[in-house]
Amino acid sequence: MNMYDLIVKKKRGGELTDKEIRWMIREYTDENIPDYQMSAMMMAICFVGMTDEETKELTLAMAHSGDMLNLSEIHGIKVDKHSTGGVGDKTSLVLAPLVASLGVPVAKMSGRGLGHTGGTIDKLESFAGFRTNLTTEEFIRNVNTIHIAIAGQTADLAPADKKLYALRDVTGTVDQMSLIASSIMSKKLASGSDGIVLDVKTGDGAFMKSYSDAKALAAEMVNIGKLAGKDVSAVISDMDQPLGNAVGNALEVKEAIDTLRGGGPRDLKELVLTLGSLMAVKAGKAENTEQAAALLESNLKNGRAFQVFKEFIRAQGGDPGEAEQPELLPRAEYQEEVYSEKEGYVSNIHTEEIGRICLLLGGGREKKDSEIDLAVGVILLRKKGDFVCTGEPIAVIHANSPEKLNEAKERLLQAYEFSEEKPLLEPLIKGIIE
Amino acid sequence: MNMYDLIVKKKRGGELTDKEIRWMIREYTDENIPDYQMSAMMMAICFVGMTDEETKELTLAMAHSGDMLNLSEIHGIKVDKHSTGGVGDKTSLVLAPLVASLGVPVAKMSGRGLGHTGGTIDKLESFAGFRTNLTTEEFIRNVNTIHIAIAGQTADLAPADKKLYALRDVTGTVDQMSLIASSIMSKKLASGSDGIVLDVKTGDGAFMKSYSDAKALAAEMVNIGKLAGKDVSAVISDMDQPLGNAVGNALEVKEAIDTLRGGGPRDLKELVLTLGSLMAVKAGKAENTEQAAALLESNLKNGRAFQVFKEFIRAQGGDPGEAEQPELLPRAEYQEEVYSEKEGYVSNIHTEEIGRICLLLGGGREKKDSEIDLAVGVILLRKKGDFVCTGEPIAVIHANSPEKLNEAKERLLQAYEFSEEKPLLEPLIKGIIE
Repeated sequence: MNMYDLIVKKKRGGELTDKEIRWMIREYTDENIPDYQMSAMMMAICFVGMTDEETKELTLAMAHSGDMLNLSEIHGIKVDKHSTGGVGDKTSLVLAPLVASLGVPVAKMSGRGLGHTGGTIDKLESFAGFRTNLTTEEFIRNVNTIHIAIAGQTADLAPADKKLYALRDVTGTVDQMSLIASSIMSKKLASGSDGIVLDVKTGDGAFMKSYSDAKALAAEMVNIGKLAGKDVSAVISDMDQPLGNAVGNALEVKEAIDTLRGGGPRDLKELVLTLGSLMAVKAGKAENTEQAAALLESNLKNGRAFQVFKEFIRAQGGDPGEAEQPELLPRAEYQEEVYSEKEGYVSNIHTEEIGRICLLLGGGREKKDSEIDLAVGVILLRKKGDFVCTGEPIAVIHANSPEKLNEAKERLLQAYEFSEEKPLLEPLIKGIIE
Repeated sequence: MNMYDLIVKKKRGGELTDKEIRWMIREYTDENIPDYQMSAMMMAICFVGMTDEETKELTLAMAHSGDMLNLSEIHGIKVDKHSTGGVGDKTSLVLAPLVASLGVPVAKMSGRGLGHTGGTIDKLESFAGFRTNLTTEEFIRNVNTIHIAIAGQTADLAPADKKLYALRDVTGTVDQMSLIASSIMSKKLASGSDGIVLDVKTGDGAFMKSYSDAKALAAEMVNIGKLAGKDVSAVISDMDQPLGNAVGNALEVKEAIDTLRGGGPRDLKELVLTLGSLMAVKAGKAENTEQAAALLESNLKNGRAFQVFKEFIRAQGGDPGEAEQPELLPRAEYQEEVYSEKEGYVSNIHTEEIGRICLLLGGGREKKDSEIDLAVGVILLRKKGDFVCTGEPIAVIHANSPEKLNEAKERLLQAYEFSEEKPLLEPLIKGIIE
């Protein structure tokens, strides 16, 4: 077998066999296939595509290219969640303790990654002393005792995907549906859970701008999961405006705490209940999603979800007092309102730009080794469909530099659009694929 | 400007600007663009294609990536010839001295390359002492005095093409028409001649197996030449059987000598006259190709072409006596006839296989640094349309090893097909594009 023949086969529209895909990924991981051959293959795949069988095999080959987490010591049905990412996406912070409060074992490996804000584990580091570098023993013990642990990815999960993604990132071969799907699913399969609920976001603030692309990606990932013998569902959710009101690490933690205490923004709660009820059903904690949603909602109201959150913060070295008094979490030096210069209904919020404003303020990573400022960000006071009078505040900027504050205020004003007529609002949940 | 954006632009079907192509080739030659990005670009071009303008600009950028030969000290209109290569293609050995005998300046840089036999300069080294490493002064002086010089490529011609071709060769991106055309033409444009006659071969023994591909390549190259301000024509010629009867270096030299002395195989003579008359007209030595062909034919008959050939051999350090007595050229130890096991008309000769038999005998290079055995090869005694009785000889194998001789004999028998009916013969000259 040689890579040249495989490239030519794919280029001519052929289907790679299981054996060929396994060989290719193994030899690429072992650096026996050079990047220049693999990038030619990736580009050919962008034009020719891959069959379901090829996509599944690529996913499995990448999943098995490094460590496969063994969660067999954890009691119960483990259900993981993955989001394709969006602006103000603090879903995991609420979802994980909420689902754990029903007794579902939540054993989550989370990355830091690049983006407008940090990842889930960056956000959790808003709690002083919070540790994400758990040993495997601690990780498993915590899940077995309080049903929840969230750790930074320490194991060598799907190294082939890591190497391949880095190559695709610089060769214009990222945006192919099967390649995106296999990249996400390879890491999830290596993480060892029994079921997976995917949150595929669509809209201006998402990787998938169009609904049809998001739907295709969701279907592809659910299909891979099924072919790999996992119980997978996908929710397609709106990202045409930020989720909730807070964008920024500690700000999002505060909003998550509000939600865990039974308050919080309506859209965040709706998404959490939708994802959570799918997870609860998969874990056998409810007969159907309606029943699951009712159980979850009552655990938000009766304080159980928040109780689990505080136990979780304590178990990983943080101070649950900071959850009781979120004003103790990191705060930015400057907090200024932004006043609308127009009047009308908010018809559009340039969501990706809101994310970039947070990045400008220092709340995200441009490079792998960038430092994150946990305190900064934006609170949106008005969202799509809200009426705004001239001079009314539409947002609050949290900044640690007056220059950045001013630039952020100007850009934020540009990110809002208004209309005379009240705009039709899209539903948050656009579809569920099971 | 960055390579990532150019890859994405091409992938989405865009047209690269002149400036982008020049930048890309310069930075790639200077090793500022990595192979893995360039191979992704090449694969995208295989699917999307290139416009005439892009192809011309790529050709010029590659031509200017190294030295541009300056032939201005050579008197007269310089006309170069290029063949896409085939089995038994000794055309240049006859064509160059024949055209020179009309006073056309023939200043030829020739490569060795890989293939079933060596290149033109390998073949010429059948003459003991023949030198191809001429200095620029010798090269120009010879052309100005005897109208002909053929030297190995010493200058750094089109290094970008060299680097890019090596990459395409291992990434399955060779067979794209615009890329093939620009690769050939970049070297020709860097070689500094005023006119170019291209011999584009088609059939089993050629790189272009189908006539339509050969025609498309020919049209593309003629078009590039015109856009670059050169006088270019292309002949599309048959390569569905070897050209002439001899395949192998010294064997082909002997056949070339026969032809220069007014004999030789009919097809070789026809091709030489077709290409030569186009060159003579471009060089202003005849009004039209009919007149040119008559002049060339008479110089084959009256000995002038052979006279120029001998002067050429002497001028580059060889012994013209070996041209007078070709039996002095390298001879293989074993020369054995191959007897037909069937009866009928020769309906097909697997041309590429004949080439591979020559390679097996040691007559070509599998790797860049392989040694060539100049003496070995095959003489075909029967060609397409000839009638053969069982037990009649159809070929003679020239070998220097009994094992290889036996294998060659067996494979040669398999390379011939017979039919009861006399097959329809394709014309040698399938088209001319000007």
